[in-house]
Amino acid sequence: MHAVGLITEYNPLHNGHRYHLQTAKQVSGADCTVVVMSGNWLQRGEPALLDKWTRTELALAAGADLVVELPVYFATQPAHLFARGGVAILSALGCDSLVFGAEHPDLDFAKLTTAMATMANGDFQHYNATFATQFNAALQATTGVTLTSANDMLSFCYYAANQRLARPLKLYPIQRRVAGHAETTITPGETFASGTAIRQAALQADWPAVEPVVPPATLAALKTNRLQSWADFWPYLQYQLLTVDVAHSGQYDQMAEGLEYRMRAMVQTSHDFQDFLGQVKSKRYTYTRLQRVATAALLQLTKAEVQAAQAHPYIRLLGFNSTGQAYLHQVKKQLPLPLYTKINQQLREHALQLDYRAGRVYELINHQSQDLYRRPLRITGG
Amino acid sequence: MHAVGLITEYNPLHNGHRYHLQTAKQVSGADCTVVVMSGNWLQRGEPALLDKWTRTELALAAGADLVVELPVYFATQPAHLFARGGVAILSALGCDSLVFGAEHPDLDFAKLTTAMATMANGDFQHYNATFATQFNAALQATTGVTLTSANDMLSFCYYAANQRLARPLKLYPIQRRVAGHAETTITPGETFASGTAIRQAALQADWPAVEPVVPPATLAALKTNRLQSWADFWPYLQYQLLTVDVAHSGQYDQMAEGLEYRMRAMVQTSHDFQDFLGQVKSKRYTYTRLQRVATAALLQLTKAEVQAAQAHPYIRLLGFNSTGQAYLHQVKKQLPLPLYTKINQQLREHALQLDYRAGRVYELINHQSQDLYRRPLRITGG
Repeated sequence: MHAVGLITEYNPLHNGHRYHLQTAKQVSGADCTVVVMSGNWLQRGEPALLDKWTRTELALAAGADLVVELPVYFATQPAHLFARGGVAILSALGCDSLVFGAEHPDLDFAKLTTAMATMANGDFQHYNATFATQFNAALQATTGVTLTSANDMLSFCYYAANQRLARPLKLYPIQRRVAGHAETTITPGETFASGTAIRQAALQADWPAVEPVVPPATLAALKTNRLQSWADFWPYLQYQLLTVDVAHSGQYDQMAEGLEYRMRAMVQTSHDFQDFLGQVKSKRYTYTRLQRVATAALLQLTKAEVQAAQAHPYIRLLGFNSTGQAYLHQVKKQLPLPLYTKINQQLREHALQLDYRAGRVYELINHQSQDLYRRPLRITGG
Repeated sequence: MHAVGLITEYNPLHNGHRYHLQTAKQVSGADCTVVVMSGNWLQRGEPALLDKWTRTELALAAGADLVVELPVYFATQPAHLFARGGVAILSALGCDSLVFGAEHPDLDFAKLTTAMATMANGDFQHYNATFATQFNAALQATTGVTLTSANDMLSFCYYAANQRLARPLKLYPIQRRVAGHAETTITPGETFASGTAIRQAALQADWPAVEPVVPPATLAALKTNRLQSWADFWPYLQYQLLTVDVAHSGQYDQMAEGLEYRMRAMVQTSHDFQDFLGQVKSKRYTYTRLQRVATAALLQLTKAEVQAAQAHPYIRLLGFNSTGQAYLHQVKKQLPLPLYTKINQQLREHALQLDYRAGRVYELINHQSQDLYRRPLRITGG
């Protein structure tokens, strides 16, 4: 059996994702679709609307054969580390290929990556502009190309991450089925919409708008579950930033250059999370970066913890169908990373402690156990 | 002018406290009543029902001439440190005497204190019993006397604290006007009841029970303000204990002997604060001690911070009438401690940072500024 990998968040799983899942085998010629999916905290520095188990179920229903978790120390990171974690896990699972959506799949990502290969991420950190702006200025200067779309940028990162592998995956960028990631409304009559537009509509319970652009299972899940957003966690973040010593908050992951003082000052005068972000915002940081720092603060993730965890990744199984099970059986004996199917005390205090903590915080709102007593979902068929 | 001091919490101010205020001048022959009162967090390790400004107003209405704050690093401490802080501040304010209620005011506290003077608090810490039990065993062995009532114990501590002063206060223990501090119900027809009984009735909005045992101003304040209790802060404590690194929580004030591990484990299976305390409880600790540790955890107060702050006390003015103002004018120039009347950025980041933090956490529930933009209350008359 051959497997194709997908790196996903499914917040929530919509028709574009279903198309991606349906196309992956076809494009790659694989027999099994392996999905690595962010857990409860996402790359944009926010909680998932639906928890990881609900989203695993939706993924399996939409065509995934095997779903594993992208650990929080990769999921809540800048694009290059998010990509690196996803690619590493798919490679460890023996995938031959990776299929991903891009706004401009015809770009010569391989060439761009090679041209930029010598540039370290740290090179940009002293400029008074966001990372993406700096990155693009350098890319423009080196190659004449600018990557202004989120998924083009991510595609670039997949190529860069793939270059680090001893046995690289075959990469298949495909055309995304949505006008643009930043599009914030659902167009009537269309069957595809952006995640941002769908989240907004779902949080307003605008089901007639959501229905045409998501699979029926997603609609049902959105209607019946407690949808979680930053508004739910704002009181905890506020409390945390008010009480923590700045010497300690300065050690939170992705915190930088005195941002801990700025956050502590602004949290005292902000009345909600959006207001807080607006007050902290400066030219130096994107909203996404600030959301990721806020996530690190909320989860009390320090740079040191995140870096130590990134050096010891693992495969955390969330769900599978019979195809996924057969594939897992095939590769199980040669896995280069540990495979975890359920959590025990040892794991929750050591190897899995960051994911466990991230899950406990998520549970404060939805009150559904995220790790304790949970086993991978099995569905028949596939 | 001569001043008499009172060390109080007023949670809430009831008829027993009013009697105490009315009696103090009479017993001591003073012209001015100086009250040092715990701020928003109390000696039993819990939030005050009403904030410090509301309680200051009630104190002034009931006969106090000058009200100052007992800082959080004294207020949330075991009896001997609570007493030490209160006595030090009253002494700094030039009081000649201290009047306090005891269950058995006829006990020879001076003699007991002298007998016990050589015993350090640390002597008890390796026994498998609570501090009070150990203390009483030692006191019994040394003097033949046992102090089983909370205010007898506190009276003992006032004597012990007073012995440390260069110019000791004159001490006046008076009979408490309530059957017992642990009494948990309000007796119909009585005009005195315990604080515990009054708090319970107030939290249940049982106003007919509360009315006979508190001044009218207290009843009005209880009816019109958001009453705060541990139930309000439980989600924040839970969040904090779930996310904090045990290496850090082990440094919280009054945390001891691996209690941080026990708290982290129990917080995961507790459904409310009472349940949590019950699960953490062992013979080694009283509920009050555990509540104080929980307060330190909630406010993220470390041992080191508390000890550093205790070494640099100050006088924080909360309110006064014209008698209090005249007295303050008289003593102002020879105060051995700094006097703060309002908070500025320098104070809130340094000298007053623990009180400021404690106030910010309290504000998360009642949304009334506790320090920023607040000035001492002035009432006419007195």
